[in-house]
Amino acid sequence: MAERPTGAGFDEIASLDQIAQLDLGRADRRGYPEAVFCEGKTADQVARIAAALAAQPQVSLFTRVRLEHVAAISSVLPDAAYDSEARLVAWPPEPPPSTGGPVLVLAAGTSDLPVAREALLTARYLGRDSDLVVDVGVAGLHRILAQVPRLRTAKAIVVAAGMDGALPSVVAGLVSAPVVAVPTSVGYGAAFEGLAALLTMLNACAPGVAVVNIDNGYGAGHLAAQIAAP
Amino acid sequence: MAERPTGAGFDEIASLDQIAQLDLGRADRRGYPEAVFCEGKTADQVARIAAALAAQPQVSLFTRVRLEHVAAISSVLPDAAYDSEARLVAWPPEPPPSTGGPVLVLAAGTSDLPVAREALLTARYLGRDSDLVVDVGVAGLHRILAQVPRLRTAKAIVVAAGMDGALPSVVAGLVSAPVVAVPTSVGYGAAFEGLAALLTMLNACAPGVAVVNIDNGYGAGHLAAQIAAP
Amino acid sequence: MAERPTGAGFDEIASLDQIAQLDLGRADRRGYPEAVFCEGKTADQVARIAAALAAQPQVSLFTRVRLEHVAAISSVLPDAAYDSEARLVAWPPEPPPSTGGPVLVLAAGTSDLPVAREALLTARYLGRDSDLVVDVGVAGLHRILAQVPRLRTAKAIVVAAGMDGALPSVVAGLVSAPVVAVPTSVGYGAAFEGLAALLTMLNACAPGVAVVNIDNGYGAGHLAAQIAAP
Amino acid sequence: MAERPTGAGFDEIASLDQIAQLDLGRADRRGYPEAVFCEGKTADQVARIAAALAAQPQVSLFTRVRLEHVAAISSVLPDAAYDSEARLVAWPPEPPPSTGGPVLVLAAGTSDLPVAREALLTARYLGRDSDLVVDVGVAGLHRILAQVPRLRTAKAIVVAAGMDGALPSVVAGLVSAPVVAVPTSVGYGAAFEGLAALLTMLNACAPGVAVVNIDNGYGAGHLAAQIAAP
Amino acid sequence: MAERPTGAGFDEIASLDQIAQLDLGRADRRGYPEAVFCEGKTADQVARIAAALAAQPQVSLFTRVRLEHVAAISSVLPDAAYDSEARLVAWPPEPPPSTGGPVLVLAAGTSDLPVAREALLTARYLGRDSDLVVDVGVAGLHRILAQVPRLRTAKAIVVAAGMDGALPSVVAGLVSAPVVAVPTSVGYGAAFEGLAALLTMLNACAPGVAVVNIDNGYGAGHLAAQIAAP
Amino acid sequence: MAERPTGAGFDEIASLDQIAQLDLGRADRRGYPEAVFCEGKTADQVARIAAALAAQPQVSLFTRVRLEHVAAISSVLPDAAYDSEARLVAWPPEPPPSTGGPVLVLAAGTSDLPVAREALLTARYLGRDSDLVVDVGVAGLHRILAQVPRLRTAKAIVVAAGMDGALPSVVAGLVSAPVVAVPTSVGYGAAFEGLAALLTMLNACAPGVAVVNIDNGYGAGHLAAQIAAP
Amino acid sequence: MAERPTGAGFDEIASLDQIAQLDLGRADRRGYPEAVFCEGKTADQVARIAAALAAQPQVSLFTRVRLEHVAAISSVLPDAAYDSEARLVAWPPEPPPSTGGPVLVLAAGTSDLPVAREALLTARYLGRDSDLVVDVGVAGLHRILAQVPRLRTAKAIVVAAGMDGALPSVVAGLVSAPVVAVPTSVGYGAAFEGLAALLTMLNACAPGVAVVNIDNGYGAGHLAAQIAAP
Amino acid sequence: MAERPTGAGFDEIASLDQIAQLDLGRADRRGYPEAVFCEGKTADQVARIAAALAAQPQVSLFTRVRLEHVAAISSVLPDAAYDSEARLVAWPPEPPPSTGGPVLVLAAGTSDLPVAREALLTARYLGRDSDLVVDVGVAGLHRILAQVPRLRTAKAIVVAAGMDGALPSVVAGLVSAPVVAVPTSVGYGAAFEGLAALLTMLNACAPGVAVVNIDNGYGAGHLAAQIAAP
Repeated sequence: MAERPTGAGFDEIASLDQIAQLDLGRADRRGYPEAVFCEGKTADQVARIAAALAAQPQVSLFTRVRLEHVAAISSVLPDAAYDSEARLVAWPPEPPPSTGGPVLVLAAGTSDLPVAREALLTARYLGRDSDLVVDVGVAGLHRILAQVPRLRTAKAIVVAAGMDGALPSVVAGLVSAPVVAVPTSVGYGAAFEGLAALLTMLNACAPGVAVVNIDNGYGAGHLAAQIAAP
Repeated sequence: MAERPTGAGFDEIASLDQIAQLDLGRADRRGYPEAVFCEGKTADQVARIAAALAAQPQVSLFTRVRLEHVAAISSVLPDAAYDSEARLVAWPPEPPPSTGGPVLVLAAGTSDLPVAREALLTARYLGRDSDLVVDVGVAGLHRILAQVPRLRTAKAIVVAAGMDGALPSVVAGLVSAPVVAVPTSVGYGAAFEGLAALLTMLNACAPGVAVVNIDNGYGAGHLAAQIAAP
Repeated sequence: MAERPTGAGFDEIASLDQIAQLDLGRADRRGYPEAVFCEGKTADQVARIAAALAAQPQVSLFTRVRLEHVAAISSVLPDAAYDSEARLVAWPPEPPPSTGGPVLVLAAGTSDLPVAREALLTARYLGRDSDLVVDVGVAGLHRILAQVPRLRTAKAIVVAAGMDGALPSVVAGLVSAPVVAVPTSVGYGAAFEGLAALLTMLNACAPGVAVVNIDNGYGAGHLAAQIAAP
Repeated sequence: MAERPTGAGFDEIASLDQIAQLDLGRADRRGYPEAVFCEGKTADQVARIAAALAAQPQVSLFTRVRLEHVAAISSVLPDAAYDSEARLVAWPPEPPPSTGGPVLVLAAGTSDLPVAREALLTARYLGRDSDLVVDVGVAGLHRILAQVPRLRTAKAIVVAAGMDGALPSVVAGLVSAPVVAVPTSVGYGAAFEGLAALLTMLNACAPGVAVVNIDNGYGAGHLAAQIAAP
Repeated sequence: MAERPTGAGFDEIASLDQIAQLDLGRADRRGYPEAVFCEGKTADQVARIAAALAAQPQVSLFTRVRLEHVAAISSVLPDAAYDSEARLVAWPPEPPPSTGGPVLVLAAGTSDLPVAREALLTARYLGRDSDLVVDVGVAGLHRILAQVPRLRTAKAIVVAAGMDGALPSVVAGLVSAPVVAVPTSVGYGAAFEGLAALLTMLNACAPGVAVVNIDNGYGAGHLAAQIAAP
Repeated sequence: MAERPTGAGFDEIASLDQIAQLDLGRADRRGYPEAVFCEGKTADQVARIAAALAAQPQVSLFTRVRLEHVAAISSVLPDAAYDSEARLVAWPPEPPPSTGGPVLVLAAGTSDLPVAREALLTARYLGRDSDLVVDVGVAGLHRILAQVPRLRTAKAIVVAAGMDGALPSVVAGLVSAPVVAVPTSVGYGAAFEGLAALLTMLNACAPGVAVVNIDNGYGAGHLAAQIAAP
Repeated sequence: MAERPTGAGFDEIASLDQIAQLDLGRADRRGYPEAVFCEGKTADQVARIAAALAAQPQVSLFTRVRLEHVAAISSVLPDAAYDSEARLVAWPPEPPPSTGGPVLVLAAGTSDLPVAREALLTARYLGRDSDLVVDVGVAGLHRILAQVPRLRTAKAIVVAAGMDGALPSVVAGLVSAPVVAVPTSVGYGAAFEGLAALLTMLNACAPGVAVVNIDNGYGAGHLAAQIAAP
Repeated sequence: MAERPTGAGFDEIASLDQIAQLDLGRADRRGYPEAVFCEGKTADQVARIAAALAAQPQVSLFTRVRLEHVAAISSVLPDAAYDSEARLVAWPPEPPPSTGGPVLVLAAGTSDLPVAREALLTARYLGRDSDLVVDVGVAGLHRILAQVPRLRTAKAIVVAAGMDGALPSVVAGLVSAPVVAVPTSVGYGAAFEGLAALLTMLNACAPGVAVVNIDNGYGAGHLAAQIAAP
């Protein structure tokens, strides 16, 4: 049995148009380039998209890559930079010069690092000066209290936290900048893959908490970059 | 049409046995007397139960009372004490002398007071020295930090919190005593009537948090009294 | 039966300390004053808090007021301003002079007006120039497209939408400023009191969407004011 | 230990009757032939069913096939057509001549292609002229607006979308034909495997949206074929 | 305290523009006029909208009206027709002449009548010949089987069902026309206000079932009218 | 504005056929007569149905009646029997002579009585010898253990329980007869209106537990009557 | 590092008592022997339990076995019978002679066969005459209608169905025997792994449906055996 | 493409500070040392943390280890003790001398053993005399009744149970000590990975039940150790 036989009910998939329409005007329209969400795309699809992006000068981010995606991108954009923890590929490899205010990314625990790094690198590649502080969860409150002066220098703060997701409420109560809260799927049982942390953050008793989707480090970094824009 | 006509398919309800079997042995077996959960009972049913309890010497608590329950109890036990905020009736009106260690009850916000008071009074009527601190939520962290020395004197700490339910994690990280966390239905939207706070507490990143049902001030006070028992 | 008999297990509630601890330092610490969430508080509790706030010079907002709260506040702060649609009371009645960038509030439908107005007024009382556009839902796309030039002048955009909650995705794809998305409980059936709109917004296919709790107009306005701060 | 020993409590499974009752009258009764849902069936069961279908002249569709199902069908119907992206096998391989009105299938993003192609091919094998447009999600609204003239020529429009699932609302607001909305499990976190998109579509603020199950490309194509029937 | 004092932070609401933007072009663009969803609107808002609609010749439907809405509409459009069971107001009172194919509406039980009638009247006012059959649930299968000849004459069939929501699966298996399934909130306990019926319908084992929101009789009638359009 | 004006888009509702189709053949087909579920029906609809039932000799049960339903039935069937706790009306008032085996109904707590009595009376009116035991929840295990000899005489046992819903597991482990478990909405917070008890019963660690819908005393009694049929 | 070093904090697991307490009295107490639920048990644990059961004469069922469990049981009870579809092992291999009434098991679709066979074999090994009918789902109603005479001969009917789970409602409406409804996890998307079918069955509009847990073929067969007991 | 190329947007991860901040003061502050939650951490991260802990004298627990974690810890702390069932590593291998009261751990079924052993070993390594009783679920009530004298000697009782989660209610009704209830994910279908047991325990009809997260044996053992502290 031939797969997708010509002349029958099945189309040939031959051109980029049949799988994607790149939104190259987005940088003009919104000020930020499009990113390629790789989950659910085949390596072949990602390679075609990478080839199209190679022909234009914008910063390109590929998010949630698997190893086969990395190989596919690499075959087209061999100097692209890859961060295995954040599952992110960036091209060109050098981030642009920093503009706007500083972004600070907090990871409540070590297990929140992948999401936190995705936020960190996204903000940096969108042009913000960005830094990361790890393992400052509320179970040992002295750790976040020691960071208060540094927290107050940021124009936007990203907080990645799983389990009880309590850190954004605490941080938002200490600063005037907006807090971008990104729940992570860290935890088990009644954490319900990040749902518990998500609900905590939506119900933060301190105002000033901007919530994004579970494990959405890219979205958190993008939002922080917008908030801290010049 | 006669309601419940005799001789038909309908029984007369004539005696206490047909509506309840009091567990008067519970104080012997468990060390704590039974409480009467009034929600879902008619005033008449509560009155019959109160009459049966009047004949024995144990502390009797009636929880989640409505005004018609209060009137019904009062007609049988005229000296019973009633707290409208906690929706609790106690008889005899004087709590027993304190034994065991101190119990401290925290209310994260003013709106958590009804649940917190139900816990406070339950612990007190079960024989513990009990005290209450109000409005120490994590949005203004200095308020709970100012209580640390006092927190460390308690043998059991009850924390009532709605919305993000973040306070128990923070408190448990500061003390060695168990924290009894009681989520409240305070909040709206994605608070889902206390579900958000419940999940937060079940996922507390600090160990030592004992969770009870949403708005279950009675259960929280009872558990705290057991933990702080002599 | 006396309510809360002295000398028994019940405390007298006599002072403000026993119901709330005002966070008067919040304006210094965060740059924004505390608001009083009135749902779940008695009129008496709100009156005591209003009296305490009258003694200090900050802008005070009372949110989610019922008529009995309005009367209670009015007895203490007779010149306070009240908006019945937003269920908001502000004191002093004049908002402060505008600083920072403009905030634009969109209501997807007429039924989203209460939440949208709560956001509008909150941003205005926190010092931002704020404006409102109504009934620009995606079912008639020409309505939001006609607003694009105006959308692009805002430093922060609040979008209140119920039912499918699709408007924030569309708006975020058209502008560079962050979009604060506030799901409303408008709708029925599988809208699940705003849950559907909440999930839509958390999964917005355009980055740059900051989600707050269902019906949380206050939080949306506060976050927008922070984003558009000078 | 013998598997299913004869003479014990275990039956021999020997004939097609013991695993399936083909509904060969369905084409007469309903006008459309039965499809074979392969998920949860063994390759052996699918082969037996294919053999029975080979003896009759109707169009046969096998949906949600895995590779072992393809091999099993191929051994019985060697000229069947297979589309690996749609996970669909059709026999006979040529679709019938087109009747009725045109069906247009939209995929909001590249990752929605498998579901969109399942809808496309189903409609085509049920006798409709069907076409596919890809990557027209609402984050870049110009892409769908450019398709409006084409949208208005369709008798039925299928829209496959994951994440926020906002595209059907937008499309339904632009055309008079019914929109068949099929939520996909594309996304992560609070997408809850397609639940978010499903709820969005059920709450579409524009009427005229017919919702089918998550990832149900077959059902969407079938419904569109019925709507566009002659 | 003056409500919305002029000169303070509160706007006067003076014109229709500030509460709604009527989509009067919808009939041109889509072929069907806009309906006014009255739930969540004040009587005053509905009256203003009715006044604006009075000035143009299209059929106007007001859905989910309460008695105060009826009075408000009546003051502006005194000859409007009102159906108390469907909670629907139509103006002008005479439906347009029928075009297209017949629509048949089924109510599984007596309690599903309000939703079924909303669908019936919507389809009729959008120009379809529409009829209603009541109490044909699957618990007594002979009732629906007796209707099969009539079912087969319809161009579109609406099925309103609560509780187990099983009727659409059965009907879709008997006919070639699409079935528009509208789950109702009839039932209790694990019916979860229509969720059980909704899930049943989304998982209908017979293809050809188009699902709309719980209790959305208007949407069901609209969709049926589109399917049966000339 | 006339309600349902003749000659417009609105039908007159004039006959029983337009609101219900009585399944009078059910007693022949199934051996048990149909019951009338009154929730969601108007008093007028119930009266018409009662009038139709008056003309035939079967036992008729009206479930989930409100006071207006009782009055409506009473006007047609003045000798009908009414149980206010079970919210049940039966006609003729005398239950039929008992056949089959005995049915025993257990109520875990006093608040479960309404559901338990609905089950009790249903079984009795369907011809079974039925009895009730109250307040035998697992918190005081001696109460149910004292009933073991009696439990073992029943041919079917109904257990109504809310909150933790643990009683059916315990009872099923003690007897050989099937246990019909009916979760009640008694409880609060994480009882989620009976969901917790429902899940407990579905996961009973002892086999032999037949679960029905939350608060479905009628269904429980009916099922028990079938199990204990001669 | 030695696993579980003696003399440290880790116990040796040496005897059956430390992993299980066989309930050998259950056949006396309940009339049915205990079954061994193998999911979550190691092969070694199952082997120890099998060895203990070998020493006594009751029928032993091992449910939800994986291949390693089969091997482990086989090493102890080499003549045990194994059904790979039902994932069931029985010993002794011959079922007991039939007593009581006949049990009929229906599978709505082919994919429901594993659950249906588990029910069939359980009922047979507990001593009932049991038979199986496959693929009689409601999408082709003639298939179940053709079985009505056979359905009416059964003392208990088990119905296994996934997806919409509509078959039990239809069957219960046709017979006087109780219907044991077992939802299966067959389906996808909004089937939510059997939840949709479970809810459908709990809300069956025909009384007489006894629901068990999703995929619980063992429980369904056990309950049917009890209902059809002599 | 180099992973994390220097000089680009990617940081070197070089020191422990960049992945974790050990809370070595926790033993002083709380009286109990920190544990290392290994799920979601890489083997390399765990090894670095283990190396840091080797330099200080406290008891260290590593929870939820996979085999690669065990190897990593072993390379740094070669005499650490490992329990494969509890997935726990402890160092130093000898638990401290017992203080405080006895802790008793109950496993409702054999499949609950992993969680029960995690609780047992945690309590033992935190300094309590701890013991384990297995397979005392409520389906065979005589098993738990036989343990009553032993239950009454414990200062704290941990109950691990999946499926219906009914055991804690029963145990709490028999003793005066607090019961720490830990739901397990044992079960299938409507057990919803432990959710059913969790809800049961939160709704325990006997007071005195302290609930922790699903499968949280560590948390249960920790809480029991606190309750039974000297």
